[in-house]
Amino acid sequence: MWALYRLRRLSVAAVAMLASSQASADDELMGAARQIFKPIPSIVPVLKDNPVTHEKVELGKMLYFEPRLSASEIISCNSCHNLGTGGVDAGPTSVGHGWQQGPRRAPTVYNAVFNVAQFWDGRAADLKAQAKGPVQAPVEMNATPDHVLDTLNSMDGYVVMFKKAFPDEASPVTFDNFAKAIEAFEATLITPAAPFDRYLEGDTNAINDQQKAGLKLFIETGCYSCHNGINVGGQDFFRFGVAERPGTSLLPTADKGRHVVTKAASDEYVFRAAPLRNVSLRAPYFHSGQVWSLKEAVGVMGEVQLGIELSDKEKDDIVAFLNSLTGQLPKIEYPNLPTRTDATPPPSLGK
Amino acid sequence: MWALYRLRRLSVAAVAMLASSQASADDELMGAARQIFKPIPSIVPVLKDNPVTHEKVELGKMLYFEPRLSASEIISCNSCHNLGTGGVDAGPTSVGHGWQQGPRRAPTVYNAVFNVAQFWDGRAADLKAQAKGPVQAPVEMNATPDHVLDTLNSMDGYVVMFKKAFPDEASPVTFDNFAKAIEAFEATLITPAAPFDRYLEGDTNAINDQQKAGLKLFIETGCYSCHNGINVGGQDFFRFGVAERPGTSLLPTADKGRHVVTKAASDEYVFRAAPLRNVSLRAPYFHSGQVWSLKEAVGVMGEVQLGIELSDKEKDDIVAFLNSLTGQLPKIEYPNLPTRTDATPPPSLGK
Repeated sequence: MWALYRLRRLSVAAVAMLASSQASADDELMGAARQIFKPIPSIVPVLKDNPVTHEKVELGKMLYFEPRLSASEIISCNSCHNLGTGGVDAGPTSVGHGWQQGPRRAPTVYNAVFNVAQFWDGRAADLKAQAKGPVQAPVEMNATPDHVLDTLNSMDGYVVMFKKAFPDEASPVTFDNFAKAIEAFEATLITPAAPFDRYLEGDTNAINDQQKAGLKLFIETGCYSCHNGINVGGQDFFRFGVAERPGTSLLPTADKGRHVVTKAASDEYVFRAAPLRNVSLRAPYFHSGQVWSLKEAVGVMGEVQLGIELSDKEKDDIVAFLNSLTGQLPKIEYPNLPTRTDATPPPSLGK
Repeated sequence: MWALYRLRRLSVAAVAMLASSQASADDELMGAARQIFKPIPSIVPVLKDNPVTHEKVELGKMLYFEPRLSASEIISCNSCHNLGTGGVDAGPTSVGHGWQQGPRRAPTVYNAVFNVAQFWDGRAADLKAQAKGPVQAPVEMNATPDHVLDTLNSMDGYVVMFKKAFPDEASPVTFDNFAKAIEAFEATLITPAAPFDRYLEGDTNAINDQQKAGLKLFIETGCYSCHNGINVGGQDFFRFGVAERPGTSLLPTADKGRHVVTKAASDEYVFRAAPLRNVSLRAPYFHSGQVWSLKEAVGVMGEVQLGIELSDKEKDDIVAFLNSLTGQLPKIEYPNLPTRTDATPPPSLGK
């Protein structure tokens, strides 16, 4: 099967363990889970080419909540990746400049640092590459790097913060550094200590019996083959519709997913497996945002990815397991942003 | 003069003091200022019919940042009254549902509790009456009380918070209590300890010589006659264009201000005097949001309200004084909002 062909990280032995005696079933399940998944760390991960400093994180937080970087000056990163609602907006897909509706569901920013690449199609290698996208996209913030830099340079408060965040640079207010600061802030948006993390760390009582049953099903039916690793997904790309092609409301024909990035025929309708951390906070589901119930989404996945019809109880058990993936969200003090000056570009609501 | 006719709080003696000997000029200026203005308190004020409790403030904060109460589920109170940018949006006037542009500049929520009434035309007696407006306005959040209550009742997290905030009520999830909780949160959005507050409290060095010169001009030219009291404005209603009618870009003909509320001919083009606390954070200025420079706004006020042409230096001095009105903004932890359920109404982007 295509999905299994691309599977990584799981040894066959781990799955085999699940079949052995009932007496040690709990140990075996935990052993298998530990081979497939990894807990969210409680410390901020190291970033490539971008040391995470307190100053950079503070600047990045300001930029993340800064609406004046958009052309309209009313849309910020947080508009679509709202930290109060699981790092996403209300959906189904995001609304941007001019009330235009974008083509895909906003991915969550929480734990995004642990994904193999960013966006549903993985077109950005990391969060600093990602951060340059929406600010320029005509259907999102509709701005330009010049607008961003003119706006930042117009306010001393920002210029000072860039100097502190990038102390070795003579002219630190750059579009690259704008993106690096946002990446540094986003690297702090991790949600450790979910019940499932505590389970992976050895506390067998951290998840209940129904959640264990759901975890077992998640492994035995093959969900894990795409949804694995630290983010229970987000680690690799897979076709949406391995067993059966979903209807066009779930899988609109025009959006060929990763094919746009790689141009490979084999990447048509291929998407990054959704990272399932905190998934219960983030309805509606799928890149099309068309399914509002997590239980229904689990059923769809069984049908179109695995070619199986999950029973009502099986879906409930898997949802119970997915609920154990909700971690502790970081506390975030809302930033006071610098005051605009006569040099700050005015907002523009038109095209 | 009409503006002076409606003047309250200032004794003639206070102004007369300013003319006496230079030696005690500082004492006299402070004495006059203390008769005209009052410092922002450092404690939350008492609200009529709405005791401010910790639980109510916490709930109100969640509601304030809650986009799912709007029809689109992407617009919250904070969208237009952004606590990171002085309690207002980028202007000139607010953008709401369907990218519609509203008719007036967003008033700031900071220190709004000290205003005599809410909105530019004072049509809401207090903040709990105000809070019911934008959520229902078709050009703003475009929702209904039913949408609000259905949304809140669909999430246990909110139902529990309402029970804690209104412990004596059998069915506390009501539109009235929604408004009361928001009012309680907004009552905490006060900004004490501005340099001018410290000056009013007796520290003669809290504002510099230029700011004192600006304060003196602010009193002697008559600015104080509309802009007085705790909010340096916001205490009463005055015609925009006492001395000279502003152009239609500043004063659009269609918006007759308080006339809409009272129907009195004498209230045509009458507005609540802008509260000037933190005014330098909040360009663009006037209800039409058409002036981006505070210095220019001061010049306009001199011409159209007082019938005088302020010199360049006088405008600079007054702006320096206005800068002394910037207080300490409260620290606000961004709220984690309850998770939507299958019963939560879906967003609606259409009319």
